[in-house]
Amino acid sequence: MTENERQALVYEGERVDDLERNNLKIIQDPSRFCFGMDAVLLSGFASVKEGEQAIDLGTGNGIIPILLYAKTKGEHFAGLEIQPENVDIASRSVKYNGLEDKIDIIEGDIKTVSQQLGRAKYDVVTCNPPYMIGQHGIANPESAKAIARHELLCTFEDVAREAAALLKPQGRFYLVHRPFRLAELIVTLTKYKLEPKRMRLVHPFIDKEPNMVLLEAVRGGKSRMLVEPPLIVYKEQGVYTEEIYTVYGY
Amino acid sequence: MTENERQALVYEGERVDDLERNNLKIIQDPSRFCFGMDAVLLSGFASVKEGEQAIDLGTGNGIIPILLYAKTKGEHFAGLEIQPENVDIASRSVKYNGLEDKIDIIEGDIKTVSQQLGRAKYDVVTCNPPYMIGQHGIANPESAKAIARHELLCTFEDVAREAAALLKPQGRFYLVHRPFRLAELIVTLTKYKLEPKRMRLVHPFIDKEPNMVLLEAVRGGKSRMLVEPPLIVYKEQGVYTEEIYTVYGY
Repeated sequence: MTENERQALVYEGERVDDLERNNLKIIQDPSRFCFGMDAVLLSGFASVKEGEQAIDLGTGNGIIPILLYAKTKGEHFAGLEIQPENVDIASRSVKYNGLEDKIDIIEGDIKTVSQQLGRAKYDVVTCNPPYMIGQHGIANPESAKAIARHELLCTFEDVAREAAALLKPQGRFYLVHRPFRLAELIVTLTKYKLEPKRMRLVHPFIDKEPNMVLLEAVRGGKSRMLVEPPLIVYKEQGVYTEEIYTVYGY
Repeated sequence: MTENERQALVYEGERVDDLERNNLKIIQDPSRFCFGMDAVLLSGFASVKEGEQAIDLGTGNGIIPILLYAKTKGEHFAGLEIQPENVDIASRSVKYNGLEDKIDIIEGDIKTVSQQLGRAKYDVVTCNPPYMIGQHGIANPESAKAIARHELLCTFEDVAREAAALLKPQGRFYLVHRPFRLAELIVTLTKYKLEPKRMRLVHPFIDKEPNMVLLEAVRGGKSRMLVEPPLIVYKEQGVYTEEIYTVYGY
C-alpha cells in the first residue's frame, strides 16, 4: 500500500493516533468515540496465548483487537460491532496497519452472536461493555457515545450469556466494568458458568475508591479466585505510576 | 466487684489483654484461640447505630461484641457460640468488664440460630467465620483452632442463610473473609437476598494481594455497591499505617 492509499483510509474529521506499540496506529473520530484507559488496561490484563483465537464484543473502533495483536502471541483476533460506522472505521484501521490476515472486524449483534458465529469456537472473549444501566440523562440515545456508554442495545446479561456460548470449555472471558456493579457482574457470570478467577481493581489514586474493575472468568472453572494488588493510575496529580506507563508502552 | 473477684474470673493458663479502648480487657486462652487483626478490622468496618441490636455469629472469646460495644452507640450486643469452653471464657470477659447489661453470650449453633432466637430480630449481624473449606491438613478436627479456621461445624451458606433470617428488613450483615472466596461469598449472599453494598480489601502491603475482604450486605438492598479504597496494613516491614493504628485505637 502506498502512503497515498494509506492516507485515503482516513476521512475528514478523523485523526490517526499512534499506539506506541510496533508502530501501530488507530483511526479515531472524536465526534463519535475515542478509546479510553479502560480499553488499554483490559488489553494489558487479558492474555491470549500462542495459537489462540480471540474475539472482542462491541469492539467500537477496534482498539482492543489491535492492542491484543500487539501485546500477545494470539493466532487470530476478531471484533464484533453492531454500528456500521464503527465497523467501517475499525476495518479501515485494520487495513491502515496491514493486519487483514490477523484481525477480522465483523458486523453483528452481541445478543445473537453465538448464533451468527457458532458456539464454543473461541479461546478468549474480551468486552469493554456499556457501564450504565438505563437511559437516565442521555440527550441522544441513538448517538454512538450513548450506545457505547449505556446499556441501550444490550445488557450485561446478554454479554455474559453470549461470551459463555462463544467460549470453548475452559476458555477465558476478560472484561472491564465499573465497581458499583461488581456484585451483579459476579452473580451474572456465575449464572452462565463463567467462574470469576482473577480480579483487579483500578484506583485513580492509592487513597481513592476504584473506578474500574478488571475481571477474568473461566468457562466451567472451579470456584476460587485471585484478587490482585490494586492498580494505581496516578502517583501524583498528572503523573502516571510506572505500571501505567508500562501498560501504555511509553 | 472487688479486684480479687475480678482476678478469680481469670483461670490458669489464660491471660488478660488490654483492648486500648475505654479500659476494656479481654480474657484469652492462647492454647485455644486468640483474636486476630480480622476481628479488629471487622469491628472497625461494621457500624451499629444508636438503639440498634447486634449479634455476632461464632463469637469465640467474645472479642467482636466487646469491641462493637466500645466503638459504637448500639443498644445491645449478643454473641452466639457453639463451643461451651468459648461461651465460658467470653462470659467471664463480659463480667470482667462489668458489661452484663450490654452483652449477652449465648450458647447455640449457627445452623439453627434463627429457630433458637427468632426471625427478623436484629438490626446488625456480624461474623468472622471459618475461612477454609474442608478438613485438608487438620491434625485435630475437634480442636478449638480447627473449628475456628475450617468449615467443620458450619458452611458459609449456613452463615448467610441464618444471617438473613435473623436480620430485620434493611438490616446489615458485616463479615470478614478471604478474597479467594469472594465470588462464592457474593453469589451466596445474593441467593439469600443479602445484597453486597460495600466492600473493602485489606492488603498487607500496597503492592501485595489482599489477604482479607470486608463486606457489608443489606437484607433486601438494591444492587449497587461501593468498593472502598484499599486498606493497607503495613507502610514498611513491622510498621503499621496510620489507619491501622487508628482502628486499633493506639
